[in-house]
Amino acid sequence: MSKAQVTTKQVLDLADARSKSTIDVPKARDYLHGGTSNWNKRVNVSGVIANDPTFDKSRREFMSRTERYERGQKITDRLFELQEHHAWTPEELNLALSAVDEPLSINLHMVAFEPVFRMQASPTLLGKYANLIASRGILGCYLQTELGHGSNVSKLETTATFIPDTQEFEIHSPTLTSTKWWIGALGKTSTHGVVQAKLLLPGGQDVGPHLFFMQLRDMSTHKPLPGITLGDIGPKVLHGYQAPDNGFARFDHVRVPKENMLSKFAQVTDEGKYVKPLHAKLSYGGMLYIRSSSGGWAIARAATISIRYTTVRRQGEVGSDGLERQVISYPSTYYRLLPILAHAYVYIELGRALTRSFDEMAARLSTGDASLLAELHAITSGLKVTITSVGILDIETARRSMGGHGYSAFSGLGSIYADYVPSATYEGDNFVLDQQVIRAALKAFRSFTPSTDVKLLPPSSTYLRLLRGQPSLSSDWSVPETPILYLEWRAVKIVQELAHNANDTDASMNQRVSKAVTEAFIARQVGEMIKTLNSKSGLKGRSAVVVAKLYLLHLLTTVESALVDILSFGILAPSEQGRDPTLTLRKAVKALCEELLPEAVGLTDAFGFTDFELNSALGVSDGNAYQALWDAAQMEPLNQDEVTPAYRESIRPMLLRGQRIAGKTLSKL
Amino acid sequence: MSKAQVTTKQVLDLADARSKSTIDVPKARDYLHGGTSNWNKRVNVSGVIANDPTFDKSRREFMSRTERYERGQKITDRLFELQEHHAWTPEELNLALSAVDEPLSINLHMVAFEPVFRMQASPTLLGKYANLIASRGILGCYLQTELGHGSNVSKLETTATFIPDTQEFEIHSPTLTSTKWWIGALGKTSTHGVVQAKLLLPGGQDVGPHLFFMQLRDMSTHKPLPGITLGDIGPKVLHGYQAPDNGFARFDHVRVPKENMLSKFAQVTDEGKYVKPLHAKLSYGGMLYIRSSSGGWAIARAATISIRYTTVRRQGEVGSDGLERQVISYPSTYYRLLPILAHAYVYIELGRALTRSFDEMAARLSTGDASLLAELHAITSGLKVTITSVGILDIETARRSMGGHGYSAFSGLGSIYADYVPSATYEGDNFVLDQQVIRAALKAFRSFTPSTDVKLLPPSSTYLRLLRGQPSLSSDWSVPETPILYLEWRAVKIVQELAHNANDTDASMNQRVSKAVTEAFIARQVGEMIKTLNSKSGLKGRSAVVVAKLYLLHLLTTVESALVDILSFGILAPSEQGRDPTLTLRKAVKALCEELLPEAVGLTDAFGFTDFELNSALGVSDGNAYQALWDAAQMEPLNQDEVTPAYRESIRPMLLRGQRIAGKTLSKL
Repeated sequence: MSKAQVTTKQVLDLADARSKSTIDVPKARDYLHGGTSNWNKRVNVSGVIANDPTFDKSRREFMSRTERYERGQKITDRLFELQEHHAWTPEELNLALSAVDEPLSINLHMVAFEPVFRMQASPTLLGKYANLIASRGILGCYLQTELGHGSNVSKLETTATFIPDTQEFEIHSPTLTSTKWWIGALGKTSTHGVVQAKLLLPGGQDVGPHLFFMQLRDMSTHKPLPGITLGDIGPKVLHGYQAPDNGFARFDHVRVPKENMLSKFAQVTDEGKYVKPLHAKLSYGGMLYIRSSSGGWAIARAATISIRYTTVRRQGEVGSDGLERQVISYPSTYYRLLPILAHAYVYIELGRALTRSFDEMAARLSTGDASLLAELHAITSGLKVTITSVGILDIETARRSMGGHGYSAFSGLGSIYADYVPSATYEGDNFVLDQQVIRAALKAFRSFTPSTDVKLLPPSSTYLRLLRGQPSLSSDWSVPETPILYLEWRAVKIVQELAHNANDTDASMNQRVSKAVTEAFIARQVGEMIKTLNSKSGLKGRSAVVVAKLYLLHLLTTVESALVDILSFGILAPSEQGRDPTLTLRKAVKALCEELLPEAVGLTDAFGFTDFELNSALGVSDGNAYQALWDAAQMEPLNQDEVTPAYRESIRPMLLRGQRIAGKTLSKL
Repeated sequence: MSKAQVTTKQVLDLADARSKSTIDVPKARDYLHGGTSNWNKRVNVSGVIANDPTFDKSRREFMSRTERYERGQKITDRLFELQEHHAWTPEELNLALSAVDEPLSINLHMVAFEPVFRMQASPTLLGKYANLIASRGILGCYLQTELGHGSNVSKLETTATFIPDTQEFEIHSPTLTSTKWWIGALGKTSTHGVVQAKLLLPGGQDVGPHLFFMQLRDMSTHKPLPGITLGDIGPKVLHGYQAPDNGFARFDHVRVPKENMLSKFAQVTDEGKYVKPLHAKLSYGGMLYIRSSSGGWAIARAATISIRYTTVRRQGEVGSDGLERQVISYPSTYYRLLPILAHAYVYIELGRALTRSFDEMAARLSTGDASLLAELHAITSGLKVTITSVGILDIETARRSMGGHGYSAFSGLGSIYADYVPSATYEGDNFVLDQQVIRAALKAFRSFTPSTDVKLLPPSSTYLRLLRGQPSLSSDWSVPETPILYLEWRAVKIVQELAHNANDTDASMNQRVSKAVTEAFIARQVGEMIKTLNSKSGLKGRSAVVVAKLYLLHLLTTVESALVDILSFGILAPSEQGRDPTLTLRKAVKALCEELLPEAVGLTDAFGFTDFELNSALGVSDGNAYQALWDAAQMEPLNQDEVTPAYRESIRPMLLRGQRIAGKTLSKL
């Protein structure tokens, strides 16, 4: 076989798989992107980025961290230049960032520094800085985490002592462990920051953590201001987050004017008296959960790459056509990959719904109505845990499904994983957040009384309506309501168990309860998505049917992953004949996978990733994976010299020593 | 609190935890290292490495891949210099490599090239090259995998055509996909290699893959020989395997003399007739499974680092002493970490037992006795899958248990993970190996007859004795035999199910069966370990009791992870009262964890890692984690300039643009 023919085979295999898909890809793409207009914006912006050499990704994997940081700053500068030139809206800037596809220092300015400042600064401060911040005339960061404390904000050690004489606050780091640590964009970039510090009032009164706006670096020299020690905290595991300069800061009795306290919700009088918050504060954490739970698109990348590659890779058994089977055709492969595809669709839709809820809550909060806060907090905590945990696993599962070549950096999944994996521990460690989910679930359970109107239960605890009577559980796994009811009933049973035996639980209970509650919520949401597919999605006929099947797969595999609970509570009982009672479900999963298999490439094409965006040799859109892998390897820096400098320095001495020991010389070989 | 006091607190916490442990650490250390003499050798060799600046690890995380490759070669050269100087045995050289703690190109020479050559080369070839290979006068690699094919050796495309006229083989790469790929040490280092190629005899007869010894590079210039194209395949995901030069090779009709065929097991006559193998070949794969299943020590590192750090980290609830609780004291933490500790102990012991079995098999094979081959193949396949899958998960679980700081490269767990994670897909993809385990299990099941003497069942299928009658399953989880029987009975039931319904399975069945069979085997082995603790381990009294409890924890958590099967087959039935039947097991796990918690630091100290070996700021042996993290960050290259060059180039232009847009100038701030 000549090279050209081989190339053709992979290309043909992918084209063939594409042609077998029955869905309307453009319609599905519009659905996933929230409409044609959004999609067109994305095509437009992403095209600008792909055609600008500043954003070239081909050498990214070969760069040192310092080079990645410098590249990150160059990219950022160019992005804003392009934004001005093309008059991009903030939304279009975000589309550009998503095409750039790597965490950047500027993200922290945009998602942490600016919103916190906007929501909590006084009108005076807003007047001085809001425009500058919006136009990036100053660059900021959000200084919360310390060496010694993360999510437990109440124990942060940095102090802000009010000095009535000068009407200033003195910001101070009293211990090594009070050093601000992990602060994105702080290490080498930010000029300003919002600092979480323990507010100390005259007489030593400690009123807990508050926020202070501070200048960190000189605006003409970029050097740290007096009393402030700044630096980068060093590389991250797996070489994730290479471009951002997560940094540290120590403050040595640094004074800031009184007006620098972000005082929309709490204030200090000139005399040093504390004025309590009027309204509930919009939780900063809550906003971030949304960000980290937007994992749907990360999973979508992994699904696209792995499904394309396992479609063109042939290995193992020889089929009736005389060719080895496509790797994706093996049950052990498609059973791993199709649920991942389903997660991507579900989480993308959930993310959009959540953003809508959040906007609604923010609007209500600004009028003093905090009624949605608790509900949204419960939901976002649970979703953050579930989506990040599942997403991390999915990206790695997709990578491993590609076998040996999946370990090449050119697979494109390594950096996605490395950048996504910290989402399990940052912005609320998943194991800590579990407790918040449980607290909310127990509260809802305990306030459920015979007089509760089940129609008024909020989405996070809709499942509690089943307390009125055990649902009749069908074994028809083709109907979405079946898996939904199993998952809801399991949530009821496990919350009940916890509530009745809270002091007598095992060590895994918290995690299991949190998972059960969140999965019941998601399942009900997925049920709604299926119901509204025909009316609201713009998908019609066959396309709607296929996406509905994909959603059903999500539901069935969620039940499958919940089988321990479901069996433990006798929700699914062993059959009389001693045969595995989970078998009908498992076979339904297999049958559904087989139905969806011909649609897989079409369903991933609908995500709409360009080759530039994916940056994966194994996932190239034309299927020519081996050629792309070969081409990428030729760029490896080690290949630029035929003989490595290490030969003279180390290898030759090694060989000569060995030949001396063996008593044979070079010339004899 | 001053810095000194804070430092003291973490140091005191670790010292306190250490003092609470009741085990005899030196005795446990000897046990894990296979005796005092081995341990002393390790201390000695590791000390030499730690004191030699060539092996300094402090800048490793800051290096580019090219620097890592060059460093790897320098390290290798120095290792052999030290070996000659200190007259180290091969075993001591391995101890030195383990202190170096990173994959190196030379590993491939030692574990693949040399053993394959030794076992399969003819006496003539051995006479010419064996000494040179042993003394590293030539450096080799093992060329099997190709771009288009991995584990399916029969489909490899590289050809070796016998030319009777010249008594040569012509090695050729006919297609792009036949390019040898992933070959460790090939890219820039090796002078020679053993090539897997399809042997073609006169008349076009294809007798399948065989091995050929080839020179790849010129011994005086190190350039690739004519007709051979060589290069490095580029970086790996997560920046794993940075130092080794996994490479590619293409052969353009390259001739090698007939004697270069490794002909111990199969030969070609001068006329081109094929002479079949006399003996079964010792599977190269089998040897490697052992290597990749030596994951016990990787898990041990992860356990040491995470247990130390979560002992000194205090966070969250304030206890009766007025201090926040140690993170390890939370059930959600110790429930994650103690089973990992147990895995490390179990896999280290299993690895030693397996090496003994392998040596025995190799000895028998050399006398023509292949009776152990099938059994060992079944066992190693299953163990490879289980230990690598569990190990990868454990390393990541340990890292995440450390919360935010676990994402710092200075946690020391990132590189362990990145270097261990390919073990799931290389040297037999785990999902492919599952099928081998199942094939062996079904064969054993089908050959079990009423006349089978159950005492003669090999270890891999001891569980089949239960086919003679269901065991009586106790609910006393304090006795090792209870969990062992549950796991064995589950293996029986699931193999039975598969055998009776092989054409009617779901997509997860293979994985579940393979897991069940291997876990039953391991459980029985762990049972033996517990029984012989007092007699053979050198551990006495309390120490033996504690290690036995750790082994029990392994057994109980394995049952816990197998609950879906156990419940599905009605092995554990729902209680009459509708309460969770898994609760007694789960509570036994929790109670056992609580018993083991005070022993955790002692049990990890017994692994005997030095700070140099661990190379982790969070896992330093004195507990001074925060100081170590601070110190490590100061070495970050970005911190060597107070103002980054990116300021002039990108940040300043960005700020000026923003100020122009906002209508405010620098001077006004």
